[in-house]
Amino acid sequence: MINVLEIYGHGGDLETAMLRYGAAAGGFTDFSANINPLGPPPGLLAALREALPEVVRYPDPGHRRLVALLAERHRLAEPSFVIGNGAAENMALALLALSPGKVGIVEPCFSEYRSLSEQFGAEVVSVFGTEARDFKADPDEVVRLIRDTDMVFVGQPNNPNGVQYGLDELRRFAEAGEAYGTYVAVDEAFIDFIPEGRRCTLLPELGAYPHLIVIRSMTKFYAIPGLRLGFAAAHPQLAAAMRDKQVTWSVNMLALLAGEVCLRTDADYERATIVLVERQRERLRKALGRLGCRTWAGEANFLLVRLPEPWTAERMQEALGRRGVLVRSCAMYPGLGGRDIRVAVKDEAACAKLVLEIGQVMGERRG
Amino acid sequence: MINVLEIYGHGGDLETAMLRYGAAAGGFTDFSANINPLGPPPGLLAALREALPEVVRYPDPGHRRLVALLAERHRLAEPSFVIGNGAAENMALALLALSPGKVGIVEPCFSEYRSLSEQFGAEVVSVFGTEARDFKADPDEVVRLIRDTDMVFVGQPNNPNGVQYGLDELRRFAEAGEAYGTYVAVDEAFIDFIPEGRRCTLLPELGAYPHLIVIRSMTKFYAIPGLRLGFAAAHPQLAAAMRDKQVTWSVNMLALLAGEVCLRTDADYERATIVLVERQRERLRKALGRLGCRTWAGEANFLLVRLPEPWTAERMQEALGRRGVLVRSCAMYPGLGGRDIRVAVKDEAACAKLVLEIGQVMGERRG
Repeated sequence: MINVLEIYGHGGDLETAMLRYGAAAGGFTDFSANINPLGPPPGLLAALREALPEVVRYPDPGHRRLVALLAERHRLAEPSFVIGNGAAENMALALLALSPGKVGIVEPCFSEYRSLSEQFGAEVVSVFGTEARDFKADPDEVVRLIRDTDMVFVGQPNNPNGVQYGLDELRRFAEAGEAYGTYVAVDEAFIDFIPEGRRCTLLPELGAYPHLIVIRSMTKFYAIPGLRLGFAAAHPQLAAAMRDKQVTWSVNMLALLAGEVCLRTDADYERATIVLVERQRERLRKALGRLGCRTWAGEANFLLVRLPEPWTAERMQEALGRRGVLVRSCAMYPGLGGRDIRVAVKDEAACAKLVLEIGQVMGERRG
Repeated sequence: MINVLEIYGHGGDLETAMLRYGAAAGGFTDFSANINPLGPPPGLLAALREALPEVVRYPDPGHRRLVALLAERHRLAEPSFVIGNGAAENMALALLALSPGKVGIVEPCFSEYRSLSEQFGAEVVSVFGTEARDFKADPDEVVRLIRDTDMVFVGQPNNPNGVQYGLDELRRFAEAGEAYGTYVAVDEAFIDFIPEGRRCTLLPELGAYPHLIVIRSMTKFYAIPGLRLGFAAAHPQLAAAMRDKQVTWSVNMLALLAGEVCLRTDADYERATIVLVERQRERLRKALGRLGCRTWAGEANFLLVRLPEPWTAERMQEALGRRGVLVRSCAMYPGLGGRDIRVAVKDEAACAKLVLEIGQVMGERRG
């Protein structure tokens, strides 16, 4: 464990990469964080540049303009929304508002479900996805988990496998939440990368499920993880309880402005992103397959990859890191093995580079 | 209460001011937030502009470069520091890490001491500063408060009166903290505005007091409240417990960069700020005195002002607001009266405008 890049539990840690591999930050091609390869929407950086002198003022503590735009886009009442410092703060606010004794998770999954739950005093109970189901869990098991806990996190699509539950399955989970009085937090941080027609989300049905929390990130799709922005939508009473736990001004002014610009962005950027990601993901799957890697049929902007024997995630990560290419080791995900890595889907040139470098590493050394 | 500007509990809320008074945000002269009138240090906005394209990357979750600079400046070990999303997040982290049953505060004070404590489940016990002591509390009373609670907040200088406790008093508080096992959080958000020779801080003596937490803001002195940045310093074990409660990446990349630039800023900017604030504060006191206002001998970049009869804070705030001038009503501070407002010390032209507008309002109407 000591040699992995994820000393803070996550990908995208260029500081640690620099300390470990000695290259300049700009020099890495980073597949360890799952950020839109197109970069921020057109005009966003210019809008931020223009707004920079306004950092002398406090952010709006009520996030009013962004909330109004979200309410309009998602056709929900404004009090349904919580604007957070990334999706992670929304998860923390849900935990702080609800104080669940037991939190259920489906492993493998985003590590913050467990770490935030434990951080705020909950006991974590997990069920496991299976290889045969592309690391989704049996829906009956998820329903039992909902029955036996106070709050359950579901990744939709799930990280690191990129797989969605179907709408019928989600409705079963939400209904179980209502039946057992268990809060169901559906983490849709990556759902915007899925073509609209294939996205499975209960967001439009939020009104039917007072125990449902839908959490979204705005930093991955809009490529602004440095600014921190996400939101949650829930029954107004639950959303208010979450806002009550928030530290005033936790969302900075530039993040709020960025959110407004992103929501006003032309739909072309969204479409182009989705098309690019889908095409490159499928090409990458094939190319990695030719190198003897196994991948799963995820729909998000990343791929879970099982390296061929005798490679380990740790050794591949290090070998690639020394070549300026960063991948996410999945060795620390319960439910995955020591040969699993996760790679972001980037543009054609970057994906080709990844395949080339993995191929060269494999050719040069034997795991 | 419903008519005040502080619907979110704080000054600096230009959104609400716009809704209420109908002017453009740029049009207000804002004395309701206490921000350095010189604006950000030279070169800061340019550095941020240059770094904007890097928002496509995650912030360093370990805040490593900023911590190294703080450790060097304050001659403390790196593990003593917690970097937060403003001073407010550091207060929240202390409360989350320590889970105090009872929190002691000295009223009147920054409203977040109470609201954050209650937000995270503590009972709040208060003692009151007295007019005769410029709204400082009797030190014996503070010591008894430390004896009777699990954690005490002390503002140094205190907001809204701007008054400091002496070093001997602070040492008594810190020693009482050690004797009774009570955590003492000293909020030094505004201490940088006080000339170095007159600043009373236990930061250099931190090693002697494992129950002491010193909290500082970097957004007020460096005029970047829109970005959110503050830090806490404490015994490494206590600092680690605070960091353990922090949501990953809660401090955004531009705030981290801004902090680094600020700590490398030429000392001239700091000196010029301190000289300006001291001169304008004393001139403002005299001018307000001539209008029949009472002020107290605070040392910070704001003044607590008691309006003459029959004016109320609410009516003055509204009359000024309609003229594009924002002041902080202190009507909601326990321990203060309905005639008290707080005004920031700004540059000469702005202060003159404030005095002129208050004089005109008083001349036109009778409270």
